[in-house]
Formats: sequence, structure tokens, C-alpha cells
Amino acid sequence: MDRKHLQRLINVSRGRARADLRITNCHIVDVFNKEVFDSDLYVVDGLIAGFGEEWFPEALEVVDAKGAYIVPGFIDSHLHIESSHVSPAEYSRLVVPCGTTTVIADPHEIVNVCGLDGFDYMLEATENLPLSVFLQVPSCVPCTPYENSGAYLDAHEISKRIDHPRVLGLGEMMDFVGVCAAKDDVMDKILVAKKAGKVIDGHYLGFGPRLDAYSAAGILTDHECATVQDLRDRIRRGMYVLLRQGTACHDLLNLLPGMDDKNTSRCLMCTDDCAAKTMVEIGHIDNNVRMAIGAGVDPLTAICMATINAATCYNLSDRGAIAPGRRADLLFLTSLDKDFRVQEVYTAGKHVASDRQYLVKPVHTSIEKVSGKMNIRDLSPERFDLKLSSKHVKVIELLPGSVVTKSGEAYVDLDENGCWKRNDEDIVKVAVVERHKGTGNIGLALIKGLNLRGGAIATSIAHDSHNVIVAGDNNQDMELAVRELIRLGGGMTVVKNGMVLQSVQHEIAGLMTDLPGEVVAGRLAAIIRTAQVELGIRGAVDPFMTLCFMSLVVIPEIKVTDLGLFDLKKYDFVPLEIED
Amino acid sequence: MDRKHLQRLINVSRGRARADLRITNCHIVDVFNKEVFDSDLYVVDGLIAGFGEEWFPEALEVVDAKGAYIVPGFIDSHLHIESSHVSPAEYSRLVVPCGTTTVIADPHEIVNVCGLDGFDYMLEATENLPLSVFLQVPSCVPCTPYENSGAYLDAHEISKRIDHPRVLGLGEMMDFVGVCAAKDDVMDKILVAKKAGKVIDGHYLGFGPRLDAYSAAGILTDHECATVQDLRDRIRRGMYVLLRQGTACHDLLNLLPGMDDKNTSRCLMCTDDCAAKTMVEIGHIDNNVRMAIGAGVDPLTAICMATINAATCYNLSDRGAIAPGRRADLLFLTSLDKDFRVQEVYTAGKHVASDRQYLVKPVHTSIEKVSGKMNIRDLSPERFDLKLSSKHVKVIELLPGSVVTKSGEAYVDLDENGCWKRNDEDIVKVAVVERHKGTGNIGLALIKGLNLRGGAIATSIAHDSHNVIVAGDNNQDMELAVRELIRLGGGMTVVKNGMVLQSVQHEIAGLMTDLPGEVVAGRLAAIIRTAQVELGIRGAVDPFMTLCFMSLVVIPEIKVTDLGLFDLKKYDFVPLEIED
Repeated sequence: MDRKHLQRLINVSRGRARADLRITNCHIVDVFNKEVFDSDLYVVDGLIAGFGEEWFPEALEVVDAKGAYIVPGFIDSHLHIESSHVSPAEYSRLVVPCGTTTVIADPHEIVNVCGLDGFDYMLEATENLPLSVFLQVPSCVPCTPYENSGAYLDAHEISKRIDHPRVLGLGEMMDFVGVCAAKDDVMDKILVAKKAGKVIDGHYLGFGPRLDAYSAAGILTDHECATVQDLRDRIRRGMYVLLRQGTACHDLLNLLPGMDDKNTSRCLMCTDDCAAKTMVEIGHIDNNVRMAIGAGVDPLTAICMATINAATCYNLSDRGAIAPGRRADLLFLTSLDKDFRVQEVYTAGKHVASDRQYLVKPVHTSIEKVSGKMNIRDLSPERFDLKLSSKHVKVIELLPGSVVTKSGEAYVDLDENGCWKRNDEDIVKVAVVERHKGTGNIGLALIKGLNLRGGAIATSIAHDSHNVIVAGDNNQDMELAVRELIRLGGGMTVVKNGMVLQSVQHEIAGLMTDLPGEVVAGRLAAIIRTAQVELGIRGAVDPFMTLCFMSLVVIPEIKVTDLGLFDLKKYDFVPLEIED
Repeated sequence: MDRKHLQRLINVSRGRARADLRITNCHIVDVFNKEVFDSDLYVVDGLIAGFGEEWFPEALEVVDAKGAYIVPGFIDSHLHIESSHVSPAEYSRLVVPCGTTTVIADPHEIVNVCGLDGFDYMLEATENLPLSVFLQVPSCVPCTPYENSGAYLDAHEISKRIDHPRVLGLGEMMDFVGVCAAKDDVMDKILVAKKAGKVIDGHYLGFGPRLDAYSAAGILTDHECATVQDLRDRIRRGMYVLLRQGTACHDLLNLLPGMDDKNTSRCLMCTDDCAAKTMVEIGHIDNNVRMAIGAGVDPLTAICMATINAATCYNLSDRGAIAPGRRADLLFLTSLDKDFRVQEVYTAGKHVASDRQYLVKPVHTSIEKVSGKMNIRDLSPERFDLKLSSKHVKVIELLPGSVVTKSGEAYVDLDENGCWKRNDEDIVKVAVVERHKGTGNIGLALIKGLNLRGGAIATSIAHDSHNVIVAGDNNQDMELAVRELIRLGGGMTVVKNGMVLQSVQHEIAGLMTDLPGEVVAGRLAAIIRTAQVELGIRGAVDPFMTLCFMSLVVIPEIKVTDLGLFDLKKYDFVPLEIED
């Protein structure tokens, strides 16, 4: 802000100059006293000037709010845009009409694939959106050393982006083992953020002295609380707790009983991972707020969790409230009841959504640096041969509706070459094909519970390193599925009897697409349906969602990466064969 | 913090290394959940490591708290050390045993006298104290253009100190007229603080659009609230309200009814101006907390106002709570009742006070740059002649127990030269003698209500420019009083019949002394008594406190500076004589 702008703001506040906008006939939500009052609201240069007086000169534009409640734009305190499978511009189109005007995004999916090029793409693609996008520099790329990823971010790399004005800090510190063990490289990452005076986000499941150590390290937030005790333990240690309600993770209602009038200011809202379908059909942070109100939380408290509490936690002193000098990120709500709707949305004083319709023309950002990320070598059907020295093997057992797997056992059939051969059992091959460095690595394992028959499915979204993951019962279809993803530059595909039945393209780093969210949601539903109908996959299972967690070795109990089968109990790679 | 320190902290948290200190047998106050819990507390390198487990290695030192409540050290959010008349080191000795471990001080008194030399002295003198002293760069030096002060701080001068790590922002913006008028020079000062990302403190009595303008400018705090409405109006606009309880100003109890469970996090504690006597006899922020509890505020809420709320407002994320990673600024309270006592005080893990006794050896800071500040020229008894062209004159009328004056009228006697001559009326001369630039300026006026007879009193403390102010009924004693202050390098004095009866030396900028607070309080009491007994000043009036506000032209209704008599209604200088 320069002197001229500050003077205009003050002059409008004092009634000496015309405002750009006057909103009238509204109830204003005061998040500081937590009360509602009736007043006009004056806006100039995208900022709130004040509440005015009758004698003020008329504004350039007057909007009749028709009795709406004016609340600050909602802030999502933690999320990954990549989880929506849509581009940042499209993400803005989906969430802004829901009332989300600021997000704090950790782009660790794309950074795992593209490194700082991915980070810079996200910066560039979020530069001029109606949605304010702040980025955290990912702390854990790669997530573990047990797989090949597309990038390696150490403290030095992190320091290259930490001072960017739209970077609020270090992304979720998933390496809690490293923090609690005080490992040198983890300490150095933390110290980069501390030195920059920025926030360090958490991701933690521990308690007791380990939680002391984790919070002593300076980690300020956690979105992984599952219980009331988790919430209170973290708040006690000065952490902020993010009440998560996304597509897959539903923690909000479990945590609310731990919140009371005394600790509410330490509670924020987040979605973490939200699919396009969820945003289109259910909403975004507005859904968190509605759910909280529905669960009996005072509406003003629920609104504070989605606004001023987040602004306070992340030092965003320019927003989060309807107060003079703050950004005019404003929502018109139809009521403060549990079924309120977001009627109008203003960001920085501009009208950007009305009745769930986005009023801004999306812009396209070049994806050159983050496309075609399929560096796969030595691909042939034979590479999917799973040669076994024993018929008694370990299998990855799926648990319905969960991303946790069970380490199971089975007796399988082998062909004349000693390779796994399909039988009547519900067991198929799963392979992780390294796609970043051209190592030619393929990690092979067996998976039980997918109920796939006569084909293959594949995806380039495979947390957190996002190699290609393919499941199938024959080498030809598995190889074709991977080839199809190479052709698309990433995505999802269903292959049967040597034919590609259906594909979804994720041309941005193999993770996202520039298509509209409604199309993405429709195509995702369609391809799941195709996989179910054509390959016999059970109706309750989203096979792509299932696959994309099969290589995430921080979630129990047994997973597979491009380096082989990984047992979390032993915290090491293990052979498939069981010695009898 | 370097890697080694962070690792040691984490290792102690995890029970892998010995702590410096374990506190046991205590109730710990959790300011985040606002609850009390029982646990040991581990400290290393001056930081809180955590709450430990029974199996932890024993600490180097174990302290039995004997059932005390452990609370974070208190934070005084706004004060002027100079008002205590003691040096910063002595201030620390007085307030730390009261439990104040952090203060946010605006050194605008000494900066008015010595400019940035005064600021640097305050920085140096607070460098290694057990008390954490943060300084605000004064925003209003001089306070007004209607007097000569020792310094002029514009935006450029302010920018020279704003980035100091112990500077939290810009001191109280008393020029609210300039803010609301959007004056260039005031805007520039505000923008210096904004650009540095620092807090701007307020000092304001307005409401309505003027308050909108003031808060829109980015001013974050106010300690001048007098009513519940003032408090709620400011909180609504995103400001923090400081509940003041000092020696002269007692706002706390008036404001508490405006605070409720919903807005309490926006309320802080401050003393503003606190005399040594008050600190010795009554206490400091502990007194604010006791008073709030006594008035029915939940003890944990009262403690939060003096701890975490202030830390949040001023971005002091390293303190304000008993939580891992924060500074071990700890108080042992005997109870959480309205009569609690501060039993033990630790700052940065060191035991610094016990049972109201300071355990630290005071250090002396060189006062070379801030002493001998009495640059007075052309002094002679005749300079105090008050020549009048009319017997009908304006007088400054004192109002008992107030710093506000009334613009009165009187008919006075004149001698053969047309100069004012004492008669039976309770009217004497008051003179402001410029002491910074050697201008030789003496501003003369008449004051009613002091009941002074047969002598003179003088002080070098005269808000905000701190010229010498002297009141008396004869030129000789008035001149001698000023000469005595020149000899002392500043202070207070009582003169009668050509003799100095008693003096107090303020060798630091004419505002403070290095003597112990108890001595200062005793000498102040004695010199007031002398003035009362020997010069007949009324028992209810503290003549020095009265005098020191006589040149502060921002307080109604009529004042005198080295440039003459100033009428606040006309906002200009006026002649003494009234044209009949």
C-alpha cells in the first residue's frame, strides 16, 4: 500500500471521498465481539473503509443486500489443490461460489513430480485468481526414502521459496519420526521456516512426550486429529487444530465435542483433500460451517473457525473480518442457520460469484514445464512377469472403505516358467512403474479384494511420489494401460482384452487437468463405472482411489513401491514369498 | 536458535537428555484450553521442553513448587518506563518480582528529550535484563508543533529503528487528528511500520467514522478506552483493547463489563504510567489480574489477558503460555483467587525473584549520552517578569484530582512596571523554560488553585516535551529553582526565600534516576510533603504531578508551553490579557 491508497481509504472512511461500493440493507457479522449488527458497509480499492454515516457522499455503486448476513470470506487452512484433479484456475471456479476466498495449499503432490518447477507452476497459476491462494513449501518431498520420486527438496531448496510473499511457511511435516528423532536434515528444514518467521504445519498422530517434542520443534498446526483427546492435547501445547471435512476424511463431527467457548479460537476449518464432485455437489468450507452449526455450534463461532481464527493462526492480518482496512472478501449468506446458502461472493471488493455461479472468466496458465511427465523406460509385457520361488506368498489385502491394508497370505498358482498365474481367487497383480527418472524400475506385488478380472486399470496418481500404479491379471493389458498413460501424459485408464475402454487425461504433471470440475467429476464417475462393469470390480470400491494409496508407505500395513513390497511393521522391504 | 539447540530441546522433550530444570508438585495453567492440569514441567536452555514422564532422566535441578499454580510470566502491553522515574534496570527490579516478565514500552518521554540517542540508551539499558523489554518507536515526537522539544522524529528517523528485533512497532499514535485527516507525514510514519510488518499502537478517544478511519489506517491497539462502548467499538473494528490500571489512570473496572466470553481474546492488560511507589506498594500487572478476578472475571481469563492475548496481539509467538518450545517465563502463584501472590519468578528458565525479592544483581548502563540535558540560555530573575497590559487576565484553573484544566479569568494586581504582583488571591506564575535547544524561550502564564506561597517549585518532567516547568510567586525563587535543576541535570526542587529546601535528582535525561525505587518513592513523598508544608500547597494536590501536565496541549482546556499560553478550544496561542 502506498500513501495515496492509504489516504483514499481514510478519506472514504471519513466521508470525504466517494466509495467504490456501498452495501446496504444487511446484517454484518462482527467476528471479534461475535455479534451481528446492522449497518451499511463501504468499500474502496478492494478494502473495507468502514460503516459510514447517512451524510456520506454516495458510492459509485450501491448494492442492496436484501437482508443478507455479511460474513468474511471463508479460509481453508489446509488443502491440496491436486486432490481435486483440476487446475488451480478451475479450483477457484469451484470453491469461490461456495464462499471460500482464501486457501492455504500445500502443493506437495505436484512438487513430488516436478520439484520447484511444480511449485512455480502453482504460484503462476494462482497469481491473478479471485481466490487468494497461499502456498506452503512442502516439507517432505519425497515422503519416504523407500521409493523414487520426481524431486528431492532439502532445506536449501526449501529456502529458495520460503520468503515468497504468498508462502506462509512449511507444509505439513509428515516426517514426525524425523522430528522426534531430531534428525539433522529435518531440523534444518524447520530452521529455515523459523528463521523466515513463518508457520510450520503439522501432520501427526502421536501423544505424550512425542507430542511435546513435535510441538517444541515449533510445529503450529495439525489437521490429523481423530479424537477429542487429540484436539485438546494439541491445543494445550499451543497448536491450532484444523477440523477436517473433505471427500474421504470426515473428522469434523468427531472433534467438535472437544471444542468449547474457551478454546474455540484455536480451532480452524480445512478440507485437506476434496474431489471436484464433492465441491460441485456438497460444497467446500461452507459445508464445514453448515455441519458445525448443524451439530449445535454457535453460528458465529463456526464462522470464526472459517475466518478470523485462520487469519490469526497464519498472520493474515489483512483479512478474516468485516473491519476497516481489511480486504473486502465478503459473503452474503441467506441466514446463519445450518442450511444457509452463500448467495453472493466478493473478493477484494469485486463481485466474483452469484448464486453459486462464478462471474470471472478463467485464465489459462502454460503447463509446459509440468506436462509430459512420463519418463518410463524398458516397458514390455514381460516386465510384468511375477516370478515366484514359492506358491505361498504375502498378499496386500484390501479392507473395504479404508486406505489401510492388511498383510495377508495366500497360496497361488504358477505357470511353467514359475510366474504367477491367475486362478479363481480374487487376487491380481499390482505394479508400481517408476515414471520420473527413467530407472526402468517396476515393483510387483499381489493384491486381494479388488475383484478385478480380465483386464487392467492404471493411474498416475499414486501418493506421494506419483509413479504409475497398475493392477491387472495379465501382462498385456497391464503394459497397454501404462502405455496409454504415457500417451496421455498421465491420468487413469481401464483396459480389457488388449483394448483401452476408457481414459481420463491428467495432463498437468499426471495429476490434474484443465477441464471443468463438472466434466472431471462426470468422467471420474464414468471410468469407475466402466471398471466396475467391465472388469467386475465390486460396486463399493473406487478402484482408482484404492490404487492411489497402495504405494503410500506411511499408512499401514503393507504397501508396494517401485522398489518392491514394503512391510510397515518391519519398516523394510520384504520378499513376496513366504518360507514354509 | 541453531540446530544444536533445537536438537537438545527435542531430546529433552523426548526424555533422551537431561533437562536443566524439573518443576514438580504444581498445577499448570493451560491458557489455550483455559484449564488447570497437574504435571511436572521440564525446562532446558531457557525453554519449556514439555511435561515429561516418570521414566525421564532426572533434571540437573528439581524444584518442588509445593502445590503452586504455574502461569506464564505477565506481559504489560503498554507503558512508559520513564513514568516510574527509575532507570530500566531498576524498573526490572521493581516489576519482575510482581510477575511482569515482558513489557512493551514506548520511550517517548526520553526520545522527546534526547531523540534517537534516548531510544538507543533505552535499548542498551534493557539489553540483558531478566525483564524482556520490547520498545515501540515513538510516533509523535514532538507531541505537537506548539512547543520546542529536544527531537523531531519523522518517518525517515522512525525507519532507522523499526527493524530492530526488539522493536515491535510504532508507539501510540496520539496524532489522531493527523491520522483522520490523512496527513502526509503521519501516513508516512504509518507506512514505515506497515512495510516492516509491525504493530501500530493507538491512543484515541473517538468514535463513528473517525474511529473507522483510525482503525482503517492499521492502528491495532488502544489503551485510552474509558467506557464499555469504547471497548466494544474498537474490538468490532479489529483492534485490541488494553485495560489500563496505572498510578493515575484507573480504567480497568470501568471496562470489564464490556468484556464477555466471546471477545475476551481481544483484551489485554497495561499500566501505561506507573510510579515507583505504586509498584512497591501495590504491584504491577499482577494488580490488574487480581482486580479483574476480584471483579468476577474467571481467573484463567484474567491470566490470559496478561499473557497469551498480549503475545498474540504483538506476534510474540515465543511466550505467553506454558507450552513446549516457549520461553520458560514462569510464575508460581499461591492461588488463583483475587488475593493471589506471586511467589517465585523465572525468566528464560532462570530463577529471578522469590517472595517479592529480586535475585539478580542490577547492572549499570552508561548515561553519558542522556545526561546533562539542560541547555538553558539567558536565565535571570527578570526573565520571569510577567508584564501585562491589563489587569483582567486569563488564568489556568486547576481542577482537583484531574489533569484537565479550566480556562478561568481573574483581575490581578500590577507593580509600578506593569508586572504581575502577588496579592491574596490563590494565583501564582507558571513558566515553561525551554531546555533542549538553548532558545532562551520562557513561556509565562498564571495558575489558580495551587495555593503556593513564598517560593517556587520546578520540575524537568513536563509532558511531552519535558522542558522545565516552574511555578512560584517571585522571580528570585523561580530563577533559583531552574538553576538548581540545571545543576542536577534535571529533577524536582522546592525553593523558598532564596534557599533550596529539597531536591530530587533525575540525572537521566531529566526524567529518571538510577536510585532504587523505594528511595525514589520515599524522596518523592518527602519533596511533596516539603512543598505542602513549606509553601502551603493543599494536601490533596501532588504539585509535581500537576505541574508536569501543565504544558501538555492535547489535554483540555488551557495550557502553557515555552511559546506561550495555549487555548485548546481555539487550538492556538492566546494573550493573557482579556480586552474589556
